[in-house]
Amino acid sequence: MTDLAALKRDLDGIPMEDNPVLVKQKSRDFFWYSPVLKRRLDHVTGDLVVSPRDRDEVIRVVRACFAHGVPITPRGAGTGNYGQAMPLSGGVVLNLAEMNKVVEIRPGVVVAEAGAIMEKIDQETRAQSGQELRLHPSTYRTATIGGFVAGGSGGIGSIRWGGLRDLGNVIRVEVVTCEAEPRVLQLTGADVAKVVHAYGTNGIVTAVEMPLAPAYDWVDAVVAFDDFLAAAAFADALGNQDGILLKNLAVIAAPLPYDYFLRHRRFLRRDQSTVLVMVAPFAVEAFAAFTRRFKAADVVYRSDLATEEERKGLPPVYELAWNHTTLRGLRVDPSITYLQVLYPFPHQLERVAAVTKLFGDEVPGHLEFVRFDGKITCFGLPVVRYTSEERLEEIMRLHDAEGCPIFNPHRYTLEEGGMKQTDAVQLAFKREADPNGLLNPGKMIAWEDPDYDFGAEKLYLFPGLERTE
Amino acid sequence: MTDLAALKRDLDGIPMEDNPVLVKQKSRDFFWYSPVLKRRLDHVTGDLVVSPRDRDEVIRVVRACFAHGVPITPRGAGTGNYGQAMPLSGGVVLNLAEMNKVVEIRPGVVVAEAGAIMEKIDQETRAQSGQELRLHPSTYRTATIGGFVAGGSGGIGSIRWGGLRDLGNVIRVEVVTCEAEPRVLQLTGADVAKVVHAYGTNGIVTAVEMPLAPAYDWVDAVVAFDDFLAAAAFADALGNQDGILLKNLAVIAAPLPYDYFLRHRRFLRRDQSTVLVMVAPFAVEAFAAFTRRFKAADVVYRSDLATEEERKGLPPVYELAWNHTTLRGLRVDPSITYLQVLYPFPHQLERVAAVTKLFGDEVPGHLEFVRFDGKITCFGLPVVRYTSEERLEEIMRLHDAEGCPIFNPHRYTLEEGGMKQTDAVQLAFKREADPNGLLNPGKMIAWEDPDYDFGAEKLYLFPGLERTE
Ligand SMILES: Cc1cc2nc3c(=O)[nH]c(=O)nc-3n(C[C@H](O)[C@H](O)[C@H](O)COP(=O)(O)OP(=O)(O)OC[C@H]3O[C@@H](n4cnc5c(N)ncnc54)[C@H](O)[C@@H]3O)c2cc1C
Ligand SMILES: Cc1cc2nc3c(=O)[nH]c(=O)nc-3n(C[C@H](O)[C@H](O)[C@H](O)COP(=O)(O)OP(=O)(O)OC[C@H]3O[C@@H](n4cnc5c(N)ncnc54)[C@H](O)[C@@H]3O)c2cc1C
Repeated sequence: MTDLAALKRDLDGIPMEDNPVLVKQKSRDFFWYSPVLKRRLDHVTGDLVVSPRDRDEVIRVVRACFAHGVPITPRGAGTGNYGQAMPLSGGVVLNLAEMNKVVEIRPGVVVAEAGAIMEKIDQETRAQSGQELRLHPSTYRTATIGGFVAGGSGGIGSIRWGGLRDLGNVIRVEVVTCEAEPRVLQLTGADVAKVVHAYGTNGIVTAVEMPLAPAYDWVDAVVAFDDFLAAAAFADALGNQDGILLKNLAVIAAPLPYDYFLRHRRFLRRDQSTVLVMVAPFAVEAFAAFTRRFKAADVVYRSDLATEEERKGLPPVYELAWNHTTLRGLRVDPSITYLQVLYPFPHQLERVAAVTKLFGDEVPGHLEFVRFDGKITCFGLPVVRYTSEERLEEIMRLHDAEGCPIFNPHRYTLEEGGMKQTDAVQLAFKREADPNGLLNPGKMIAWEDPDYDFGAEKLYLFPGLERTE
Repeated sequence: MTDLAALKRDLDGIPMEDNPVLVKQKSRDFFWYSPVLKRRLDHVTGDLVVSPRDRDEVIRVVRACFAHGVPITPRGAGTGNYGQAMPLSGGVVLNLAEMNKVVEIRPGVVVAEAGAIMEKIDQETRAQSGQELRLHPSTYRTATIGGFVAGGSGGIGSIRWGGLRDLGNVIRVEVVTCEAEPRVLQLTGADVAKVVHAYGTNGIVTAVEMPLAPAYDWVDAVVAFDDFLAAAAFADALGNQDGILLKNLAVIAAPLPYDYFLRHRRFLRRDQSTVLVMVAPFAVEAFAAFTRRFKAADVVYRSDLATEEERKGLPPVYELAWNHTTLRGLRVDPSITYLQVLYPFPHQLERVAAVTKLFGDEVPGHLEFVRFDGKITCFGLPVVRYTSEERLEEIMRLHDAEGCPIFNPHRYTLEEGGMKQTDAVQLAFKREADPNGLLNPGKMIAWEDPDYDFGAEKLYLFPGLERTE
């Protein structure tokens, strides 16, 4: 860092924090989920947290950082779990949390500032118009919409709408570029892909326009099976029921539900795998009728039938699903970790069976059924009973060999966490919107090292990261 | 008919009509669509039209008919096109059109009397709550919800929600049985299948509870292609876009759009096949971005971009789709007829290509993309340049041989129009709810002739039909 004092003077009037303890707190996310990332990123910290209150203040911050050559790492709520929001080269942590207004609500559409918490957006859209966001991560109650668009992929609602990457699931993104004179761009249509899931490496998202779906009082249901694969087959069939409106559909293998879902434990036996369902209230009857066709299905909980006593203290099922399964697991057993797997259509059930057979209780299954390219298939977040990095790597290789691509959650770069190749559109946009490479350095390998060999299968080490050690 | 006079006395106070000209009018539907049905059913008429105003009057009518052994054929708006609503044994035509109240609107749910017109239901649900029916036939502006549930299968909205047969697309059906003392049953869950698409052969539907979806100001778009198969491939890909909310997605082969869609003709060349799209207003940008990926796609019309002048007099695209394509064709060229085909997933595009090659302009293609068992595939309503019944039969056999099952629209029985087998659930329910077989006689072969051989491939001739000739 060259001249922090000068930068601060330029930002006079904008809320700032430079207490090292507090700055370090705001320089972390849920990277510690991964034993691999925990070891490598634990020391990372920024120099200064800046909390703009509106777009003009964002522009002032960016202009000043550009002038002084100070890196900027945007931050929403810091719930990302790949270290995405961690300032690998130090500099400014740009905290968007103060920009949290819902700007506009129309039929099918909400416009919100980047720092708005998703649950809060839904409270407003529900109250005003009976609508809610199509998609939200299981960190609904804490995460920001800007962080979701920049760092997330999908989650609750993906059984109906696919993921953030799908055209139409993000209508517009307002982006401030990192240039001498920052520009405000409105990306729409296919252009939103320039910044969706780009970890804020190529623009500061200041507002988003998202599609809405009708808000219902979703019913939570837990269906127990003695056999994990029977549970998976049931979920697959349920997901293919076109008339039964669901909001989430997950399968968790025994003994995880009993071991990790402590408040739901009283409904379960340890040898039961569970299907977690969010279903529209007016579809519950159809759901029940469908479920009756499966002799092995045991509906152990339904929020619409539970007494107030029974419901008390129970988290919503979306907080048992997606990465919340892992989070609850980590609380019970800090030695576990997890993976992210795609079981491609149309062989998803065979693939799940194959890896289940291969790993047994070393990798207990966790499936999230989603729409993917128009078809129902499942994405996996299996728990891994972690022994070593080598074994973890081997488990990933074995998944790949079984035709199940891994999205590695133990990497902080876009490429290594994704398709192991560079997104040419995002790279091109970074050239345009962040010519000096100040935005979230170290997260896009293609920018740092255009000749990097992804075939080598080793972990990318961002040189800047060493500098801050 | 034994004693019509006595029946009339029993029904005193309930609106009736026995003028033979008017009764014959109300004994017909769109059966004349089919040259085969036209020849066989043209003479059919009932004896008396009775128009109850509420459920109690329905019960009175049924009780009296049962006592006198008089057949009852329920009727909504008479827009069915298989002769479903035609009283093959004469007797009472039970006109439900006077029972047309919307009873209740809740989030996701509407309850309406059987005779309510679908467009009218939507007007009320839109005004009260911004909601609309998930599914409607292209006869939206004239057909009743009871007739749709009893005689239809799906249509506009099926790209999103599948068909009426899918669990959850009909929540509850209120049915009056035909017994000495008629009962009122509330069928829910899987039980709705007892009467859905049973042509009123096993109960009088007096009210239905249907799921609602959000109502949007759907944008109509027409995308033209020089090649029909390219249009089909585009539509297939568009239908698989999980984030782009559509309400209908149809493909019509050249020269039909130019020849039949007279008011849209000015946007088209005769050699262009068209994709007809209904898309949510907030998804138009994503739709446009998606369409730009297809070099051959030419967006010739979009209602949101059209001037008022251009929009004037244009029917909505849903009135170019489903059976309205055929209807518009028949107006231009009364010699044509049509078929109903399923192109099963995952080989729908190959199957379409195969039959297109086989028949050329003798059977110009018309595809309706739908969700079917969770996947996007297409259903076909190809136009047939009709020459003879023999050739029509041959065309159907050739479709079957190409792996494209036919749902024969030239038959008035449930079995021959459907899967060529009896629905055991509907038959069992008829035994219970219509023990004397008075409801819509001649439409369920299994009831009339339990030993009928469907393998014989010949047309079923209802004996009662000959009696009325
Ligand atoms: C228990 C748990 C469950 C989770 N479940 C899901 C899930 O179901 N689905 C899912 O997709 N994710 C999930 N996540 C990951 C994460 O919670 C979500 O993606 C969340 O939406 C991130 O929002 P945030 O505000 O916390 O973003 P942050 O963590 O603060 O940031 C995420 C990334 O976006 C960048 N960023 C943040 N704001 C901006 C901005 N305004 N402009 C530019 N870049 C920005 C950051 O630099 C970072 O790279 C889960 C995580 C945990 C710990
Ligand atoms: C141009 C055109 C387009 C069409 N498009 C579609 C389409 O997209 N999708 C589709 O599914 N259909 C379509 N149809 C067929 C038909 O219009 C619809 O199915 C419509 O919903 C039927 O409603 P209706 O009120 O006219 O019923 P009717 O024709 O009066 O009756 C249909 C059947 O249901 C029975 N019935 C009617 N009311 C009751 C009741 N209350 N209780 C018990 N039985 C009853 C009748 O006896 C008959 O067997 C189309 C027809 C035409 C002519």
